[in-house]
Amino acid sequence: MTDTRLTPLTQTLPSTVPFVAPERMEELRGTRFDARLGANELSFGPSPKALSAMVDSLDGIWKYGEPENRDLRFALAAHLGIAPEEVTVGEGIDGLLGNLVRLYVAPGDAVVTSAGSYPTFNYHVAGFGGVLHTVPYKSNHEDPEALIAKAKEVGAKLVYLSNPNNPMGSVHPAETVQAMIEAVPEGCLMILDEAYTEFAPESTRPALDTADKRVIRFRTFSKAYGMAGARIGYGIAHRDIATAFDKIRNHFGVNRVAQAGALAALADQGYLVQTLERVAEGRTELARIAQSNGLTPLPSATNFVTMDCGRNGDYARALVKALDAHGVFVRMPGMAPLDRCIRVSVGLPKEIAVFAERLPLALADLG
Amino acid sequence: MTDTRLTPLTQTLPSTVPFVAPERMEELRGTRFDARLGANELSFGPSPKALSAMVDSLDGIWKYGEPENRDLRFALAAHLGIAPEEVTVGEGIDGLLGNLVRLYVAPGDAVVTSAGSYPTFNYHVAGFGGVLHTVPYKSNHEDPEALIAKAKEVGAKLVYLSNPNNPMGSVHPAETVQAMIEAVPEGCLMILDEAYTEFAPESTRPALDTADKRVIRFRTFSKAYGMAGARIGYGIAHRDIATAFDKIRNHFGVNRVAQAGALAALADQGYLVQTLERVAEGRTELARIAQSNGLTPLPSATNFVTMDCGRNGDYARALVKALDAHGVFVRMPGMAPLDRCIRVSVGLPKEIAVFAERLPLALADLG
Repeated sequence: MTDTRLTPLTQTLPSTVPFVAPERMEELRGTRFDARLGANELSFGPSPKALSAMVDSLDGIWKYGEPENRDLRFALAAHLGIAPEEVTVGEGIDGLLGNLVRLYVAPGDAVVTSAGSYPTFNYHVAGFGGVLHTVPYKSNHEDPEALIAKAKEVGAKLVYLSNPNNPMGSVHPAETVQAMIEAVPEGCLMILDEAYTEFAPESTRPALDTADKRVIRFRTFSKAYGMAGARIGYGIAHRDIATAFDKIRNHFGVNRVAQAGALAALADQGYLVQTLERVAEGRTELARIAQSNGLTPLPSATNFVTMDCGRNGDYARALVKALDAHGVFVRMPGMAPLDRCIRVSVGLPKEIAVFAERLPLALADLG
Repeated sequence: MTDTRLTPLTQTLPSTVPFVAPERMEELRGTRFDARLGANELSFGPSPKALSAMVDSLDGIWKYGEPENRDLRFALAAHLGIAPEEVTVGEGIDGLLGNLVRLYVAPGDAVVTSAGSYPTFNYHVAGFGGVLHTVPYKSNHEDPEALIAKAKEVGAKLVYLSNPNNPMGSVHPAETVQAMIEAVPEGCLMILDEAYTEFAPESTRPALDTADKRVIRFRTFSKAYGMAGARIGYGIAHRDIATAFDKIRNHFGVNRVAQAGALAALADQGYLVQTLERVAEGRTELARIAQSNGLTPLPSATNFVTMDCGRNGDYARALVKALDAHGVFVRMPGMAPLDRCIRVSVGLPKEIAVFAERLPLALADLG
């Protein structure tokens, strides 16, 4: 029953969990998945040096983490060639998105994103009373021109673009993204979600320009650095924007283990290069498997391959369910027309082999 | 410069860090503290079994944490004799308090607490536009009757009591707290912050009654369980209140290492008993040191001893600074008349020995 002491806004919000966790699905199935390929996690795991730093950090787990994330902000600033005040660190991009929406969106304010793009962003917009306006994807890409046009039309406070895009794996060249930044209307802030950027070519990243107050970029240690469970990501922006997070964030919210791991992971760029090679190999293999089973793999600049099943959402949902029954965890886009696809993360070679073996069985089940 | 795209509310909030971290103070001093006794952390650290579980959990750090915190909620429910739906898990009590305020406090709503009590709660109230009303401590205790009277007077949405209390170390018997719960006015929710409860006698804890919608209780793995850096705590409440957090929380926000550690720490109640004995010994020793230096130790039901310096806030602040110069990190209450005191956490025996050695030197510096 709704507690009538809740605010008028929070009374209207549903109690939800945005994704059913693979652990929960396994509990319901009664057995473990043979291949965990649904959450775009990095099955190879983080750098051994990051793991070692995290083990070492546990000696100090009785201490609160350092609340300003200074070591990491300074290291990121040096790595990126910007100032530490232009970096804000938070509990993953999810946490940072929540705080960003809280900073910029009052009830009734307009926000623009693509229909079928990141649902957790939409969750935060709804959670602060923002009004979400969406534009369709253009083929398999988010549509920067349509996003900007909509932002102008509705007087948006925020406009969201992910590059590369989840769930489609597509990416825009740097020039296209830069042109979108240049077109952000007065009074609006653009969110450039670069969670997957390390997997994409350099040519897809606009130059960092922290003098530009029209955009904030988010990156994470959850994807290419293989530390999803550590919950640590960062925002890059003009210092007026980056330091605004200090108005509202849970200052002691970042786990001490995550701080230590992120610092060591960032320092081990050699391991990142190896990771990117392994992921590229896995993508090639996943694309081959898709093709040999009559699915169309979309080009991917991420650590997953989105596969067009060539039919409607009901068919793809049935395929996800059939794969589940065969011990393979994958996910799919939630909204038409994207939901004609399934989304398969690059896992370990043995997990990809399981997928190769089970996909034909699952397809056969559907007839 | 303030970003004019921020909401009217967030434009008015200052960018701050609520506490300067000991790491930052060490950076400014140029050397490490010889005794870290300022943050009410548990220098003894967590159970070896919890440490071991956290090390093991790092093998899976590439996976997101389970977003419903099911294993821990079920274990806590079994431990406490309540239902899993009556427990909500979050990123420490700080994170839970932020979400609670967001759920219940709309801009302009009244909130009641004690003048000089937990500043991070006040930070969240301000951060959501709540209007804070305070009542004074009565001697060294929070004053339940005055809190309730003020809550009635101002029509408060939330009224906050910590039991035991930080920063004074005082505690009310269960009957007093229960009487306060019974008196909570219609439309108001009482927050019972029990961060330090494990250090206090059983007789200070009202029976858990999750049928009662007048109160939510918060507990943590940061204090008696020695895992401050892991960022994990929980709320206990009627299921309508506990599940309301699912409307707004960062579902994947709890670190996977923290989940594993908390589960193992909870299971090792034998280690907790040892911890409580060690802390009790440390409190006795800190009280002895205070007395032999002319300070008055206040009775403590926590893992710190608050020491009345017998003069005003300027004197206590000077003493904190002098202790810093002598390599000892302590903190003190921020507000008069509580700020006549310093607050010293129970540390390792060798740290307490350092405090015993340096306190007379610091006092001598003040003349």
